[in-house]
Order: sequence, then structure tokens, then C-alpha cells
Amino acid sequence: MDIEHEIEIIKRGAVDLISENELRNKLKKAKSENRPLRIKLGLDPTAPDLHLGHTVVLQKLKQFQELGHTAIFLIGDFTGMIGDPTGRIEARPPLTKEELLKNAETYKEQVFKILDPNKTEIRFNSEWMESMTAADMIRLCAQYTMARIMEREDFKNRYTNNLPISIHEFLYPLVQGYDSVALKADVELGGHDQIFNLFVGRDLQKAYGQESQVIVTVPLLEGTDGVNKMSKSYGNYVGIDETPDIIFGKLMSISDELMLKYYILLSDISVDEFRILNEDVKNGKIHPRDAKVNFAKEMIKRFHGSAEAEAAYMNFEKIHKEKEIPDDIEVVKLKKENDSIWIPKLLLDMGMVTSTSEGKRMIGQGGVAVTDAGSMTKITSESIPVDKADGEIFKVGKRKFKKVVFEE
Amino acid sequence: MDIEHEIEIIKRGAVDLISENELRNKLKKAKSENRPLRIKLGLDPTAPDLHLGHTVVLQKLKQFQELGHTAIFLIGDFTGMIGDPTGRIEARPPLTKEELLKNAETYKEQVFKILDPNKTEIRFNSEWMESMTAADMIRLCAQYTMARIMEREDFKNRYTNNLPISIHEFLYPLVQGYDSVALKADVELGGHDQIFNLFVGRDLQKAYGQESQVIVTVPLLEGTDGVNKMSKSYGNYVGIDETPDIIFGKLMSISDELMLKYYILLSDISVDEFRILNEDVKNGKIHPRDAKVNFAKEMIKRFHGSAEAEAAYMNFEKIHKEKEIPDDIEVVKLKKENDSIWIPKLLLDMGMVTSTSEGKRMIGQGGVAVTDAGSMTKITSESIPVDKADGEIFKVGKRKFKKVVFEE
Repeated sequence: MDIEHEIEIIKRGAVDLISENELRNKLKKAKSENRPLRIKLGLDPTAPDLHLGHTVVLQKLKQFQELGHTAIFLIGDFTGMIGDPTGRIEARPPLTKEELLKNAETYKEQVFKILDPNKTEIRFNSEWMESMTAADMIRLCAQYTMARIMEREDFKNRYTNNLPISIHEFLYPLVQGYDSVALKADVELGGHDQIFNLFVGRDLQKAYGQESQVIVTVPLLEGTDGVNKMSKSYGNYVGIDETPDIIFGKLMSISDELMLKYYILLSDISVDEFRILNEDVKNGKIHPRDAKVNFAKEMIKRFHGSAEAEAAYMNFEKIHKEKEIPDDIEVVKLKKENDSIWIPKLLLDMGMVTSTSEGKRMIGQGGVAVTDAGSMTKITSESIPVDKADGEIFKVGKRKFKKVVFEE
Repeated sequence: MDIEHEIEIIKRGAVDLISENELRNKLKKAKSENRPLRIKLGLDPTAPDLHLGHTVVLQKLKQFQELGHTAIFLIGDFTGMIGDPTGRIEARPPLTKEELLKNAETYKEQVFKILDPNKTEIRFNSEWMESMTAADMIRLCAQYTMARIMEREDFKNRYTNNLPISIHEFLYPLVQGYDSVALKADVELGGHDQIFNLFVGRDLQKAYGQESQVIVTVPLLEGTDGVNKMSKSYGNYVGIDETPDIIFGKLMSISDELMLKYYILLSDISVDEFRILNEDVKNGKIHPRDAKVNFAKEMIKRFHGSAEAEAAYMNFEKIHKEKEIPDDIEVVKLKKENDSIWIPKLLLDMGMVTSTSEGKRMIGQGGVAVTDAGSMTKITSESIPVDKADGEIFKVGKRKFKKVVFEE
């Protein structure tokens, strides 16, 4: 493939490319030496539970892989086993070797839905970090200045605000950067928020006599609300292990604009195909609903298979078309507190009524319904088991529809 | 010995004692357990060429030793072997194992003129640092915050002035502090300028579940000029390997006030003896000259032996008394540039004449003399070999006396 076209593919949806010219030179050199580039992606070794937000960078890695380059999947098990020794950050306890290997297996299962396992090198940084001595670590630290480390936003802010920074926190980005030296990475991928760490890799490779890696970052994916970044804690995520019906429903509820962003960052369609799609949606040749259906099918096919994608589509059509339920239903996340749900309170929490007494009255008048195995069924009692409500669409009156999802 | 009296001895001449109460408790506990305290003194592993300034802290260590405690002489060979990996500080090249062992031998030779070799534990921090892994180093660094490290004056100043600080420089004080953990030190001694590092030891012992060491610091010794700290580069030092005659001459030239300070910090006389000496000098019972003679003899005896001390005294008396040369002659250090000295220029450099022509005239008039094997001899030619001038006293006219010492 022509190098300029390769660059166009690599730039698709990327936030930073540092630098395009270095990338061009590396691609030329690799081509002349008939060898692939080594593309590094570092991953946190904590238990994965991937959502679409995580897959943006995997999609970029896949593009490199399809261009014939070597995808290196680096699991930071060394730092994971140390954790946060101050015990300050409770969310980061040290992991055992067993836990790490188990997490790595789960990762593989999930990411090989996107990447080609045969073209992926899975590495652990304990390979080189476990045999590193304290003296080596001192020499590594000699390659970096405090001023440079303090350019990292969170360090700068904490220092300015007199919040504690432990010295070992300075060592972690250096270890991460040294991984690029050990792997002889040509390119490192990451989220845009990781750019500081990727720069450390560039600097350290230079200090250790290597050519600096090219940096490619991808944006943080917005969640289904189109406002905040996709995150489990915001409840605006699409988990790759969620059921096909849930994924389909969530993806049909996004805005047209967000749908186009998702296409750029997550879909396998080519740069040229996207250009046409974008025009067709904007000039009305394709209905946005159909574009969303295609996108939702593509995602479900990727994570669950073709048959499941088709089935989810059929279920969705059945409920929405036949029962006159609109496509873009708002999904409300609630915390699961009891096994039994008192519906007037639920409707209030979902913002479908303004008081529990209104909710009670609506139920009494036969004006509340809920989907049950795909069919809208009138509610007659004030309480139902939580299982009967979770993931279902509630209807109040003639035109109010909302879906509820309960979280642990 | 009574604990309060022990504390009085330990406090003699000290700048910091952190804290007296902790020291009291440690002394009590050690006594009740019938064990000595472990007193740590860390030393730079670079080639030693000790002068009296270095011996102040050794004197303090000796006092502990005489009180029955264990002197631990720690040679920082681990950090010495790493040096400054940035290559920024040229004066700190990495040392080889052989160089370090050679330096250690030279140290021993010199310091055992003060310490009792049988009661001294000589240790190298490579014993525990060489087997330390990068992971251990990260855990060590987790015990310290950046805010705390930045309290060190030179870090603070460099950061404020935008001068580079390499990350590894933060690791060195932590290694030094960890030495206290490894040694289970009860007390750490150091120069007052080292107090930051000694505090790191206190903090780290606490972090590693030990009782924090007590800190005792001694002042920087003023040089023979009574102004600057004693240092080879200021030319105001008394090297312990200098000849007895040079040491005697240098010590006789110091001021009465400085002589009393030197007694406190360097002499073996007891606290009580010093109290009496101090009073006797101040009320005229003892002539300061005699007190200086005794002090100079004590130092020469310590570093060269009794016979040499007596001989140096006799030489001095002979020259000064018989030839009417004053005792407190200023010593001028000059750089050795040629093997032959042109005396008019020498006299100008020593500030004994105001021009070389005045020097020439004085020589012509027979008004210049120099000591030769202890006797004042008139100078008749304008040039003499440098060996004939080095360490000798020049006399110009009737009352101007100065001694010259040439340095490489």
C-alpha cells in the first residue's frame, strides 16, 4: 500500500500524531528493510471489563495490524504487583501473579474479538523489570529531570495545591517509558490523556541510544449521553460483554452526530466508505436510523457474532415497530437496592411522574405498562421483582417511554 | 557512668541533638538491656585526604565509643559505584570496586588514629543495596513525599532557579536513609550541613517499623583564618598527614578564641578540664600561647606520635624563641608554578613588599632573610630553589614575618 494512504488510515480519528514526518520516515525505512513496525499499546493489569471506550485504541491497533505491522500488547504486571505501596489509593491494591495472569486471560478473550491473535505479541513488563536492580533504577532515573516530570498535569496540580506526591510515583512513568526501550517500539498508542507517559518513552529511547517512537493518541470516547466520557460510573457506557439486546438498545438511543463519531472511531468501514456514509446521512440519502442499525449490528457482530446481531435487530424491531415504541428511548441507570421494586417510587426516580401518589394513581387508572419478553404489558400491582424491571422499557400514559437498568 | 553525664559529653560542641529526651530514653533502655547503642557515621567513598575539619565528627564518634557504644563506620560504596550517571558533575565519576576498597583502606589508616579499631564496625552499604531490586527501590520511594524531599535546601534552590534536578538525585538521600534501617542505627552523626539526610533516616526507620534514630550534628570547623570553613580550597586547613612542623606552625598561628573552639571540638580533654582551661585562659592564669602549644602537641601526638610532637615543639621553640620570631606568623599559600623562585615577586605575592623593585632593593640592602634548617639566614641572591622556600619563614626588615607554603 502507498505510504500516504497508510498515513491517512493511521490519522483517522487520532488526536495527536507526533510526528507525521517521523512516521513517514519510519514507514519508508520499514518498507525498504521489508520489516513491520512495532506498535506498542500498554495496558493496565487490573481486572478488565471493557466497554466501547476502551476499544477505540484497540481499533487503532487493529488498523496498524491490518497494514501489516506488529501489534504489541503490553501488560504492566510489574507495576501492578507493586500497586500503591503507600496504601493511599485504595483502588490500587497490589495484585498477585495469579490475579495478573487471570486478568491477562480475560483481556485476551476480550481483545481478540478485535485483534488478530496470530499477529499480536503479548508481553509483560516483568520480563525486564523483575531482573532490574536498584542500581539500574537509579541510572534510569538519572535520565529524567524533575522539571520534565512536573509537566504532567496531575503532578503539577497536586504540587501547586500542596497535595502529597510520593517519590515512587515519579518512577512509574519512567518504568512505562523504559518499556518502550525494552520493546524497541516504533510507535506507541494511547488515549490522549496518556500523552505525557508516551513522551517519556520517546525521551528515554533517545537517552538509551534508540530512535524515538512515534506517538499516536486517540480521543476519549463520549458516552451514549454525548456529554461525558464513556465510563461505568457515569452509566453512559456500552459494555462489550453486555447482552446483544442491551447493546442494540443503547446504540439506537444515541444522537445522529454521536453516531458519526462512533463510526470514525469504532467501525471497520474504510476511510472512503465513511466519507460516503457521512455525505449520504447529511444529504438525506440514508436515514440516520438505518445507519445506527448498521453500526449496532457491526458492534454486536464483533463482540457476540452475526446471528446474535441479527437476533438483536429483530427483537428491537419487534418491540419498537409493532408496539409503537420509539427508537431513541432514554436509558436511566439506578442503583439496585432491593429485590422487589415499588413502582410508584421507581417512576418518580426515572422522572416519569412528579410524585409517588401520581404514580399510584396512574397504575390505578391502567396507564402504566412494561415490556415483558418483548411485549408491552399493563401493570396491575404496585410492586414487581427487580428482575422483571431490569433492562425493560416502562411506558406512562400514551407517550412517555424510558428504559431502566439496575446496577450493583 | 551516670546518664546525665553521658548526655553532657555527647552534647559537647554539638549543634543539633534531636532529641535530648529520645537520647535519654535510648541510653536508659540500652543500659537496662546491657547493650551498647549503635552509632552510625556515613562517609563519602571518594579518596580521603583528611584535615582537622573532617575529624570533628570522628572525635564525636570516639566519645560515644569511649562511653561503651558501638561505632559504625559506613562507607557509601553503592552510591559511589554509580556516581552521577548524568555525567553533569565531573567531580563525581563512578568509582570501581578496587578504587573503593583502596579508599576504604586509606580511610581506616587515617581514622584509626582517632577511633579504636577493635570497637569499630566498618560497613559498606553495597551489602544491602546490591541485592536490592528495582521493585524494592520503588517501595522505598513510596515512603517519602516530594514535598518532604524539596525541603532540602539545594533542591529547593535549584527548583526555584529553574536549574535541573535529575530524578535519581531524590533517590540518593533515600538510600542514605535506608542505610539507617539496614544498620538499625540508634544514633546518626553528621556535619550540621547533613541534617536533612539524617532526618530522612529517622523518617524511614519509622516507616519500616523501627524506632527513629537520634540525630547529633557537629559544626563545620572554621579554618586557621577563623573566617571560612576549613577546606583545602581555601588554603586554611591543617591536614592530618602534613608534617609535624607544618601542623605545629599552623596551629600556633590561630587566634586565642579559635584555639578554644578547637579544644572543644578536637581535643581529648574532658568537659571538666576544658571548663577549667577556659577560665584559666580568660583570667590570665594560663598564657594562650601555652594552651596552643599543648593543643598543637596533642594533635601531632594523635596523628604522628609523641616523639614527633615533642620534636615539632622543640623546632618551633628554637626558631621562634632563639631567633626572636613571633609565634603567630601568618601562613601564605601559593601555587607552585616553577622550580625556581624569584624572590622579589614572591615577597610581593606574600604582601611583604608593595612592588618587586622594593623587594629587589630590600634584598640589595641585606634586609631579607629566610629560615634554613631552623636558622634565619640572610638572602643574597634574587632566586632560590622552591624547596628552599617551601614551609619556610621569610623576614623583611626588622618586624615583618610570614611563612610560605606551596601547593601543587
